[in-house]
Amino acid sequence: MRTVDLIEKKAQGLELSEDEIRFIVNGYVKGDIPDYQMSAFMMAVRWHSMSAKETAALTLAMMYSGDTVDLSMLPGVKLDKHSTGGVGDTTTLAVAPLVAACGGTVAKMSGRGLGHTGGTLDKLESIPGTKVEIDEDRFIEIVKENGVAVIGQSQNLVPADKKMYALRDVTATVRSIPLIASSIMSKKLASGADAIVLDVKTGSGAFMSKKEDAVELAKAMVRIGTLMGRKVRALITDMNQPLGMAVGNALEVREAVELLSGKIPSTDPLYEVVMLLGVQMLIMAGLAENETDARSSLKAAIDSGEGLRRLQKMVELQGGDPSYLTMQNIHKLINVSKHMDVTSRKAGYISKIEAEKIGTAAQMLGAGRATKADVIDPSVGLVMKVRCGDHINLDEPICKLYVNDESRLDEAVALIRKAVHITEEPGEVNPMIYGIITEKDIL
Amino acid sequence: MRTVDLIEKKAQGLELSEDEIRFIVNGYVKGDIPDYQMSAFMMAVRWHSMSAKETAALTLAMMYSGDTVDLSMLPGVKLDKHSTGGVGDTTTLAVAPLVAACGGTVAKMSGRGLGHTGGTLDKLESIPGTKVEIDEDRFIEIVKENGVAVIGQSQNLVPADKKMYALRDVTATVRSIPLIASSIMSKKLASGADAIVLDVKTGSGAFMSKKEDAVELAKAMVRIGTLMGRKVRALITDMNQPLGMAVGNALEVREAVELLSGKIPSTDPLYEVVMLLGVQMLIMAGLAENETDARSSLKAAIDSGEGLRRLQKMVELQGGDPSYLTMQNIHKLINVSKHMDVTSRKAGYISKIEAEKIGTAAQMLGAGRATKADVIDPSVGLVMKVRCGDHINLDEPICKLYVNDESRLDEAVALIRKAVHITEEPGEVNPMIYGIITEKDIL
Repeated sequence: MRTVDLIEKKAQGLELSEDEIRFIVNGYVKGDIPDYQMSAFMMAVRWHSMSAKETAALTLAMMYSGDTVDLSMLPGVKLDKHSTGGVGDTTTLAVAPLVAACGGTVAKMSGRGLGHTGGTLDKLESIPGTKVEIDEDRFIEIVKENGVAVIGQSQNLVPADKKMYALRDVTATVRSIPLIASSIMSKKLASGADAIVLDVKTGSGAFMSKKEDAVELAKAMVRIGTLMGRKVRALITDMNQPLGMAVGNALEVREAVELLSGKIPSTDPLYEVVMLLGVQMLIMAGLAENETDARSSLKAAIDSGEGLRRLQKMVELQGGDPSYLTMQNIHKLINVSKHMDVTSRKAGYISKIEAEKIGTAAQMLGAGRATKADVIDPSVGLVMKVRCGDHINLDEPICKLYVNDESRLDEAVALIRKAVHITEEPGEVNPMIYGIITEKDIL
Repeated sequence: MRTVDLIEKKAQGLELSEDEIRFIVNGYVKGDIPDYQMSAFMMAVRWHSMSAKETAALTLAMMYSGDTVDLSMLPGVKLDKHSTGGVGDTTTLAVAPLVAACGGTVAKMSGRGLGHTGGTLDKLESIPGTKVEIDEDRFIEIVKENGVAVIGQSQNLVPADKKMYALRDVTATVRSIPLIASSIMSKKLASGADAIVLDVKTGSGAFMSKKEDAVELAKAMVRIGTLMGRKVRALITDMNQPLGMAVGNALEVREAVELLSGKIPSTDPLYEVVMLLGVQMLIMAGLAENETDARSSLKAAIDSGEGLRRLQKMVELQGGDPSYLTMQNIHKLINVSKHMDVTSRKAGYISKIEAEKIGTAAQMLGAGRATKADVIDPSVGLVMKVRCGDHINLDEPICKLYVNDESRLDEAVALIRKAVHITEEPGEVNPMIYGIITEKDIL
């Protein structure tokens, strides 16, 4: 087999066999296939996409490029959750403890945030002492004791993805549904869960700006998981504005604590997405018959405080100080030298909030990484004061900034003003949830 | 400007600006842009092709990546000729001296052969003593004296193409019309000719197997040349069977000498293509009014022996021994240990001769290079005994092999048998010439 012939085959739009795909992935991981052939191959994949069979073969080849996690020592259905990355998305820190409180087993391995989206690991590390690099045995012990743990992926989990992603990032081959689907699913499958709920974002702040693409990506991932004997469901949710109000690490932890303390109304989009993710997890785990049952269990876990207790316990078991995670103390996580409102320069209706720009503004303040080497300031970020559809008056705050390093403050403020569109008439507001893809939708 | 953004732009099918294209080409030549980005970019070009404007910008950026040749010291219209590469195509060695004999100035820089198509330089070097690495001043002197010289491209002619071609070859990005057109035309333009005739081959032995693609490539090249103020015309000729009967270096030199000695009938396809190329060159140079005039001049140059004398003189001026180049002595160029006929295993009509396979068979005998490091045996090769449409009897020869190294002889024979299709009924025979593209066709 010659690599150039396989690239040619893909460039002609022909289907590659399982063997051929394995040859490419293994050859690339071993270093036999150079970057310049892999990048041409991935551009040909972006061009012609991949069949369901090819995508599954790619995912498996990637999954088996490194270690896989064995969760069989844990009881019941092992649950995992993944989001394709949004702005102000702190769902994991809320839904994972809630599902545990309802009897679920949530063993989640997470990645770091890069670019304008924050990572769950970074949020957890904003709580003093909390560790996310925990070995597999201890991870399983924590989940056994508490029903939930969220840790970093082990170093050798899907090395193919690490190498491929780094190359995709610099060769404009990120935006390919089979490449995104295989990247996500290879890691989810290698992480060992039986049932996985996916949150596929669509809109200006998401990977998939068009809804149809998000649906296609969701289907591709549900298809791969189902083929591998896992239960997989995917929500399609809106990222045309930040999901929660907070964007920044400790600020998002605070929002999760507020949610788990019953301080966020059920009309709130973040609340609704957390509920829907939890509903799917409880149903897949066999812990609820239907949506109504699942919702009332989740609601009870908020009302009783059991969800919050699971988060506190998880942080404690992961070496952190759980005393911050109360409504009384949570403010202590946020240590900034300056608060500042960004105010509106005209009156009108909020017709659009470009989530990507809001995320980038928070990154400019130090809340996210532009490159892997950047150090995050856990305290900084912003809290939105308006949502799409709201009316705003002249000089009223659009958002509140939490600032330490002011070097890019002006730039961040200008970007926020650009992100928030104010019009005389109220515009159409997107629904928060577009739908759900289950195994029935891939037949 | 970030390379990844330009790749993304092309991957989205958007048009790049002249500046952006220059940034990529210059960055790649300087080593600022790594191979893996360039290969992804070229795959995106293969995907979305390029507009006329982009292709011109690419060609210019490539052309100016190295030295350009100044032919202004030569009188009149400086002529060049290029073929996209065929099997048994010895046209240059015939047409260039003929045009010189008719008063034309042919200053041709040529490349090496690779794969199943032979290179003019390799053919010239099969004549003892002949040098093709000649400096520019001496090159111009020879052309001044003799009206014709054919030498190798100087080391620093279009370095961008050398680097890009090596990468395209291993990343399945060869088959792209703008990349082929810019590769050829950057070298032709850098070589300094005023008028260029192109021979674009189509069929099983050619780069462009489909006729429409060959026409598109021809138009792209004529367009680039015209934009740069050069006269460019392109013949579209058939490569569904070898053009001449001989395939191999000295064997093709012999066929050129035969043609220049009037030993090849005017019904022969090689003769006809040589005539048509010569006609276009004479018309572009203003040395003939029309096709009839041009043909009779070329015919006279054969009949008088002046064409052959120009070839002999050229070889002499390039350091070679011209005494080989006569009907009496030409056989001395071909020194092989074994002659062998490949015979037909059935009677019938020759319905197809796959030129690529014939070229590869000759390469297996040592007539061509599979890799740049391979050494050519100038004497070996084959001479076809049949053409499409001919009738053949059982055990009659299909071709005669000229062999020294027998290590791949069986393989070559098997491939020749596979290449020559014999059917009970005569098949349709392709015309040798499909048409001509001039500046009028690109408007």
